[in-house]
Amino acid sequence: MRNVMRKGFISSAMLLLSFCGMSQNDSAMLKRLADEIMLRSTAYDNLRFLCKQVGPRLSGSPQAQRAVEETARMLREAGADTVYLQPCMVPYWVRGEKEQGTVYFSGQRKELNVCALGMSVGTPAAGIRSQVIEVRSFEELEKLPDANVKGKIVFFNYPMRPDLIQGGYGDAVRYRSNGPVAAAKKGAVAVMIRSVTHALDNNPHTGTTRYDSGVQKIPAFACSTMDAEWLSRLLKRKMPVQLFLKSSCQQLPDVLSYNVVGEIRGSEKPEEIITAGGHLDSWDLGEGAHDDGSGCMQSIEVIRSIKALGWKPKRTIRAVMFMNEENGLRGGTAYADFAKKNNEKHVFAIESDAGGFGVQTLGVSGSPEQYAKARSWEPLFKSYGVYEISNGGGGADIGPLRPLGTVLCGVNPNSQRYFDHHHARNDVFEAVNKRELELGAFSMAAMCWLVSEYGL
Amino acid sequence: MRNVMRKGFISSAMLLLSFCGMSQNDSAMLKRLADEIMLRSTAYDNLRFLCKQVGPRLSGSPQAQRAVEETARMLREAGADTVYLQPCMVPYWVRGEKEQGTVYFSGQRKELNVCALGMSVGTPAAGIRSQVIEVRSFEELEKLPDANVKGKIVFFNYPMRPDLIQGGYGDAVRYRSNGPVAAAKKGAVAVMIRSVTHALDNNPHTGTTRYDSGVQKIPAFACSTMDAEWLSRLLKRKMPVQLFLKSSCQQLPDVLSYNVVGEIRGSEKPEEIITAGGHLDSWDLGEGAHDDGSGCMQSIEVIRSIKALGWKPKRTIRAVMFMNEENGLRGGTAYADFAKKNNEKHVFAIESDAGGFGVQTLGVSGSPEQYAKARSWEPLFKSYGVYEISNGGGGADIGPLRPLGTVLCGVNPNSQRYFDHHHARNDVFEAVNKRELELGAFSMAAMCWLVSEYGL
Repeated sequence: MRNVMRKGFISSAMLLLSFCGMSQNDSAMLKRLADEIMLRSTAYDNLRFLCKQVGPRLSGSPQAQRAVEETARMLREAGADTVYLQPCMVPYWVRGEKEQGTVYFSGQRKELNVCALGMSVGTPAAGIRSQVIEVRSFEELEKLPDANVKGKIVFFNYPMRPDLIQGGYGDAVRYRSNGPVAAAKKGAVAVMIRSVTHALDNNPHTGTTRYDSGVQKIPAFACSTMDAEWLSRLLKRKMPVQLFLKSSCQQLPDVLSYNVVGEIRGSEKPEEIITAGGHLDSWDLGEGAHDDGSGCMQSIEVIRSIKALGWKPKRTIRAVMFMNEENGLRGGTAYADFAKKNNEKHVFAIESDAGGFGVQTLGVSGSPEQYAKARSWEPLFKSYGVYEISNGGGGADIGPLRPLGTVLCGVNPNSQRYFDHHHARNDVFEAVNKRELELGAFSMAAMCWLVSEYGL
Repeated sequence: MRNVMRKGFISSAMLLLSFCGMSQNDSAMLKRLADEIMLRSTAYDNLRFLCKQVGPRLSGSPQAQRAVEETARMLREAGADTVYLQPCMVPYWVRGEKEQGTVYFSGQRKELNVCALGMSVGTPAAGIRSQVIEVRSFEELEKLPDANVKGKIVFFNYPMRPDLIQGGYGDAVRYRSNGPVAAAKKGAVAVMIRSVTHALDNNPHTGTTRYDSGVQKIPAFACSTMDAEWLSRLLKRKMPVQLFLKSSCQQLPDVLSYNVVGEIRGSEKPEEIITAGGHLDSWDLGEGAHDDGSGCMQSIEVIRSIKALGWKPKRTIRAVMFMNEENGLRGGTAYADFAKKNNEKHVFAIESDAGGFGVQTLGVSGSPEQYAKARSWEPLFKSYGVYEISNGGGGADIGPLRPLGTVLCGVNPNSQRYFDHHHARNDVFEAVNKRELELGAFSMAAMCWLVSEYGL
């Protein structure tokens, strides 16, 4: 009788586990996966190569093309069953010569640490020199009479809010995206924003800006936060202050580029596809180490670790290096278009594009049932520092898959340091910690493995 | 009827909340606390001062005394009702001149990056030169015949295990603590360990070692991990390799030093004491930024933030800078002794001594009921990046309070980067991120405030 009851208990427990999409073995499997990654990962060495030998990888640039070739090699070396390139046309914006920003006041001058915003038009060859006026917000700009703005340079000094624990970037980046249009509508001749970062330092941060058809395209810059503070203090003295800005950036014709795809073909349901990705392009001021060399190298490690263990995933697992996330999303769009055209069945996609820092949560977007199933795996992740599988998440490049019914997942590291480096010259290999990078790769590999075993 | 039911529901909910030790207001209070800290904290500036103006603070040193004075000032400036020093005698170990480590092989020589372990005896003035033998573990050493070890230098090359996500330090530090005794028992004349860190670099890491009475005290060193790898490769060539080691460290007579205490007196139950602490002493190679300037500055911020908000905690809240955690724990012991002698009622103590990185969990040691009550506050912390109030935790300095029935709490940041800096020359201010430091201060202040309001 006791045995029968125990058997009954055990089979109920197994039923429960199978409902959750977990076997008692999963914990041991994940430990093997973690050991493989922590002991033998190539992600860190690959990242060093990508950062130091290839360098920054602006869409359309020769370095981006080299990155395509080198990551295809890395995927082959990782043991992917097939590696191929997926073509897409990408914008080719070039920065040109080092930008200049000089403040003239009371017979003195001071050089600022500036950079052009990505996709900005350049200044005339002689630069632009005009009075600079500071505004703290769009609302403040709106209230100014057009005549006070006309012919001047608008300086948006909106700091990334320290009181927002998350979300400070989304709040502040509006000025980078929409500042040029707002200023041009009031008649400004150029715009300079305070860099979108919490760090108080001398690094200007670039990133995409945009123009509206029908509104004058004016040259757009960012200055370092220290310079923003200095200039703001200077302007409080109510003296005439002129700013000279010069850039030679330009938009060249679109260029053929590629997503890089490496896959392990599924053993039971090869038609069901799982995607692990990051974006291969980067801004040009640093090395694109956290943004997003890390996500790419972690995605390759998903393939390497599973192949090294000799595991045969039931569903197909792909690592994808998406091209052109930063200034066009052409790679992500092409990937989804290709999937649609070929009736591919994309069950799950995970993206790491928030830096190679220690992962805290994985955010999942799917139906309530799909989320509940993913959530049931949470206990498997805690000993690796991932404390929550939260509701809602994804990534820019995998976003276009959502209309296909794909469950999306975003890798969410502790992001407090991320924006110190984001789009700036200090986004370099040295800022990435080997173990944090590897634990992020583990979290991706583990999710891909679990989805491959149990579906969603 | 509906109103009655609703009232019934509301009062049940309030009963439940009050059972959990939470009011609906707590979330709003903690938001105010977080805003105060993220917008106006002095922790980061204070840490810069401590690191750059005071410098490293080895127990007994003039810098440690200066740190006592400066943190007392910081506590007064933070608005503490009372600030006082609590005397304790501390060991005074001095490193002396920069250590030397030179490898001689095949007519060549190579300098190693070495440092003496803390509390080590020095070498004779002329140094020690002898054959070096590598062992990977205590077991390997034990198996060697004594004659093979006698008169030689033992090199413990035990790497911090990459596969241990947590706990790698505890595992590897056994060689730093017990290596000298184990080697001396076999007749070795000196010992050198591989630095206890995951990082592969040129920084030697110090830290306390120990001797046994009745066993010869031999000089103890650490070399950098890069040098450990190099030396290990060299020794595989089976050629005679000699190592020259020189240090002039010594143990001077004990010195009078102090814990620094600043407190806000409780408005309702002043006799019930809550302690927030870190340790003020540090090793001497870097600036003691993460270990543990961060914990000290966070503890001062607990006082500053609560006073700045004009809050009146019901119970007494103390910030304590403990002296001599690194090589004696005299401050922590004195604090508990003083509490015992004066029949102080210590209800709760929290320590931050695992680096100023982003906090992931708070670990609480108390009775099951006490832990359950603390755990009920977990939802209040999630939006600040603290995902778990886990069972079990504390800190070296507050440990001696446990026999008094004090509930202990340890602040647990993501520690993957910590041991890259721990006890080494790169434990400097620049390695600390302002927001991570502040979020740690918030987690301490929030816990202290909740315990002050609700007890445990």
